[in-house]
Amino acid sequence: MPFTNLELVEQVDAFPHPVYHSAEHAKQLSTLVRLTTAAGDTIGYLLPSVVAALKDTALSGTWWDIGDSITLRGNTIEERNENILKTVTSWRENKTFKVLGGWRNELYAVYAPAGQLYLTMERAATCLFGVVTYGVHMTVYTTNPIRIWVPRRNINKATYGGMLDNSVAGGIAAGMGAFETLVKEGAEEASLPEDLVRERAKCTGAATYFYVRDKRAGGEDGLLQPEVEYTYDMEVPEDVVLKPCDDEVQEFRLWDVEKVKHELAAGNFKPNCIMILLDFFIRHNIITPENEPDFLQISARIHRALEFPLASHALA
Amino acid sequence: MPFTNLELVEQVDAFPHPVYHSAEHAKQLSTLVRLTTAAGDTIGYLLPSVVAALKDTALSGTWWDIGDSITLRGNTIEERNENILKTVTSWRENKTFKVLGGWRNELYAVYAPAGQLYLTMERAATCLFGVVTYGVHMTVYTTNPIRIWVPRRNINKATYGGMLDNSVAGGIAAGMGAFETLVKEGAEEASLPEDLVRERAKCTGAATYFYVRDKRAGGEDGLLQPEVEYTYDMEVPEDVVLKPCDDEVQEFRLWDVEKVKHELAAGNFKPNCIMILLDFFIRHNIITPENEPDFLQISARIHRALEFPLASHALA
Repeated sequence: MPFTNLELVEQVDAFPHPVYHSAEHAKQLSTLVRLTTAAGDTIGYLLPSVVAALKDTALSGTWWDIGDSITLRGNTIEERNENILKTVTSWRENKTFKVLGGWRNELYAVYAPAGQLYLTMERAATCLFGVVTYGVHMTVYTTNPIRIWVPRRNINKATYGGMLDNSVAGGIAAGMGAFETLVKEGAEEASLPEDLVRERAKCTGAATYFYVRDKRAGGEDGLLQPEVEYTYDMEVPEDVVLKPCDDEVQEFRLWDVEKVKHELAAGNFKPNCIMILLDFFIRHNIITPENEPDFLQISARIHRALEFPLASHALA
Repeated sequence: MPFTNLELVEQVDAFPHPVYHSAEHAKQLSTLVRLTTAAGDTIGYLLPSVVAALKDTALSGTWWDIGDSITLRGNTIEERNENILKTVTSWRENKTFKVLGGWRNELYAVYAPAGQLYLTMERAATCLFGVVTYGVHMTVYTTNPIRIWVPRRNINKATYGGMLDNSVAGGIAAGMGAFETLVKEGAEEASLPEDLVRERAKCTGAATYFYVRDKRAGGEDGLLQPEVEYTYDMEVPEDVVLKPCDDEVQEFRLWDVEKVKHELAAGNFKPNCIMILLDFFIRHNIITPENEPDFLQISARIHRALEFPLASHALA
């Protein structure tokens, strides 16, 4: 049985929603511990398994205050960066969490209120702390009729190997802007000339949702990953051809809307691509109030209000 | 001082948000009584002043069950329609609520879960029961550069007289579809040929928010109005000129983006137009992560998850 669009959305926005599933939301929250700033702002959620690991000071050092909530010690960004690096390096060496086997050597930013940088941490560790991560996703397409460039991920990739992906996508590393990340990823993943992306890529909003990871993501089941993906559209002429450049992508195909819908409904896309493609279909009059009974819930869940302070990439 | 974009959004999505203002949300809810279906689904919120009026059976009849929540009696849609009509007609005759002075002779639909029609009620009464209302908003524009058709409402209109409005907008009456409503309003308000709208208007999503009415809306202050506005874009050539047809609109102007932003920031647009124009600016790469520090909160609040069963216009 193919999935409905709302069922697909629920696979991505999988952490119980405070409005649509308020009882489950409260129940789930009661099993978690909040990660807070020194000022008391909640910046992430910890599973019991991570709390237990933090309490093992032989591995996690003395860099944490652990009570009803958990706070990383350190009065400056630099001190906090050092303390979290020591923690996750120790865990990595001791193989405390499988997910750290996917160590990226890439720092992600975590923010306090008003878009203030609070700390940076290794990308692979973010889902252990349930902090918000940021990325960019672009749909590259031709018109009359609309056809979309769809890559298949390298079968050997540790995360979602062999699954379908969005035309261009990537995470925003600490210190990078959204658009600059897009230009870089367009060249690296799809061989798109920088000038073409700068001229034609248009920001169309942001997809926000609260993902719960499964085995396909690599690492432990159930790790928490609230996520922001800035979305871009890029209409291109027929003679622009997307090609793999690095080893992320195996091949690109130019598919019509029916084919993309079919592959979505079959569960063949990397989960977070679902949100970006459904948003594209909504913005382009393909999914409409007349043909989609769950139009309004889908629209709201693609733009979920996250309960953490968010980045202001405007100020970066 | 001009308003920031987030301040503008807060004027429209004014009912406390369960994620961004959770304490205020809980406090506000504690002052309200839920309107529920016979099955117990919450379909609206009542202010204490409306609860008091319902308890006066000389005016409201015996058509209500009043306890911790309030339910309209009636086993069928027809019985419920009759009971609510008797109630609001009695209030209208006795001038119980000022807002019923704006009686429209237009029925709006209220839904139970799964998009099932539960009852229809006079449009002017919806904000007394805090039920979700539905409408369409279209931005008609030319390109290179983008300029937007902006009407000024007739100064004599009871609601928001003299304020700026979206190119085409209107409420969805019971039994009408979203697109059909748009075609009708385009002709009535902006003299747009039906064929042109059918060919060029494209649905781009829905703005959802929880408005709290003030005097400019007509009637009592503080009435609750959760709202869905299906949004449409219509790009037109320079020779398409919007003109008033009925008496809603005084004049149309074709303004560039800077002028529209200036008038928005000055507070000169009818409040709910704020959401549609900011959404247009986000989708068209005018408001971006790089130039708007509140990008993510604005995006989420334009697409608020409403805590009531919503229409499925797909099934209408």
